[in-house]
Amino acid sequence: MKSLEEKILADGLGLGTEIVKVDSFLNHQIDVAFIRELGAEFARLFADEGVTKVLTMESSGIAIAFATAAALGDLPLVFAKKSATNTMEPDFYAAPVRSFTHGVTSTARVARKFISPADRVLIIDDFLAHGEAALGLAAIVEQAGAALVGFGVVIEKRFQGGGARLVERGWRLESLAVVQKIVNGQIFFAS
Amino acid sequence: MKSLEEKILADGLGLGTEIVKVDSFLNHQIDVAFIRELGAEFARLFADEGVTKVLTMESSGIAIAFATAAALGDLPLVFAKKSATNTMEPDFYAAPVRSFTHGVTSTARVARKFISPADRVLIIDDFLAHGEAALGLAAIVEQAGAALVGFGVVIEKRFQGGGARLVERGWRLESLAVVQKIVNGQIFFAS
Repeated sequence: MKSLEEKILADGLGLGTEIVKVDSFLNHQIDVAFIRELGAEFARLFADEGVTKVLTMESSGIAIAFATAAALGDLPLVFAKKSATNTMEPDFYAAPVRSFTHGVTSTARVARKFISPADRVLIIDDFLAHGEAALGLAAIVEQAGAALVGFGVVIEKRFQGGGARLVERGWRLESLAVVQKIVNGQIFFAS
Repeated sequence: MKSLEEKILADGLGLGTEIVKVDSFLNHQIDVAFIRELGAEFARLFADEGVTKVLTMESSGIAIAFATAAALGDLPLVFAKKSATNTMEPDFYAAPVRSFTHGVTSTARVARKFISPADRVLIIDDFLAHGEAALGLAAIVEQAGAALVGFGVVIEKRFQGGGARLVERGWRLESLAVVQKIVNGQIFFAS
């Protein structure tokens, strides 16, 4: 998505060889109108898949997943939780998830009542790095016996291999921007 | 807001004397169209305040804050982070925040570059209980030297005293539903 690549270059920042910093519009401050455009693009890409539910991981996936669910006709959105709360359903699906940006492993949980075998689930996230969050969410969809329609990610860092891990499982992956490499902070997109 | 009270009674659940469980539409599964209605209501209430930025706390504030920022004319939205990441700005405002639902104290952080003294900030959150998150976010706005326009919360649990703590500081508070008490799981709204 050309406008996204331009936005990443204009407002984002490459750090070292691994980090794409887009906290000014995607995952700390949020450019609401732009995120809605990205959501509309996911809705266009997955329009024919009969999606019934959008699933994401807290926290930084929520805004883009909300925009996507809205653009798909106000589908229900579920976000997996990474820490237990005193209001959490005791009956949940769970999968271990290692976070690249937080450097910790946590347990992603989704209450069972929110995904059923009849669902066709679209997983949306802001980043795809090593694919840990994506695989954790996919495991939850499989536990539920629901159909996994595919993954929509805003920025795929292809050099970290998460995309390949999803595609080799046969899943559909749509990345709105694919970063091929980062050299001395300069971001190169896959052509 | 009548439709919200009805939704809480229809889809929510009172637990014991302290918990309002609304994970089916507000803070785990999200009813996108309904959340957008709530956002429109906040936008109406704060329409004359010259808001320049919406601030919330990750994670469960993000969806309603996104809807509010959109309804206010696509204002920028910032969500405070409760854990440090390797992409976090080193230069941030910080405030300690105790979570009622998680039972832990964490540090809320907002990168300095995202709130300026020229900003008029509206704080949005899903719940107001003891007011810890709200006071933490207010402290961040004050550190930035920005104007705090007020607080918009979806559900205020008045018996936990957070609302009084905000109002006695002179801040404007708009709660879309006010729970007066919960008795044996039955929810009573303030009239």
